[in-house]
Amino acid sequence: MDDLAVKIGLLIRKNRTEKKITQEKLALLCDIDRSYLGRIERGEVNITVLKLFEIAKTLEISPTNLLP
Amino acid sequence: MDDLAVKIGLLIRKNRTEKKITQEKLALLCDIDRSYLGRIERGEVNITVLKLFEIAKTLEISPTNLLP
Repeated sequence: MDDLAVKIGLLIRKNRTEKKITQEKLALLCDIDRSYLGRIERGEVNITVLKLFEIAKTLEISPTNLLP
Repeated sequence: MDDLAVKIGLLIRKNRTEKKITQEKLALLCDIDRSYLGRIERGEVNITVLKLFEIAKTLEISPTNLLP
């Protein structure tokens, strides 16, 4: 399951870019640093379920859409 | 979303007891402290997605079954 964070990060990036939302804007709306969002999208951090839900809500998608 | 951890904790406890697995055993299989699993089931901590997947795998259920 080492690559779970990578898969989730790719799904966040995919959904974010499809919605034409910048990293800066998504980070701001989710109250996280842009650099931290970058690390999330690169799969460098294991985010909490709460953060996943916040990102999904901001992207107006189901949290399950961000799970592999 | 303050009660997300509470809802997830209740779902973990529900699925664990349905499988007749003790907190001790689930904690051991997931390589976490039993007391920490207790805190998770009471919704006192926001777990990572990785931990949620590990718990789901151990319970032999889909991770989405542990999401409200």
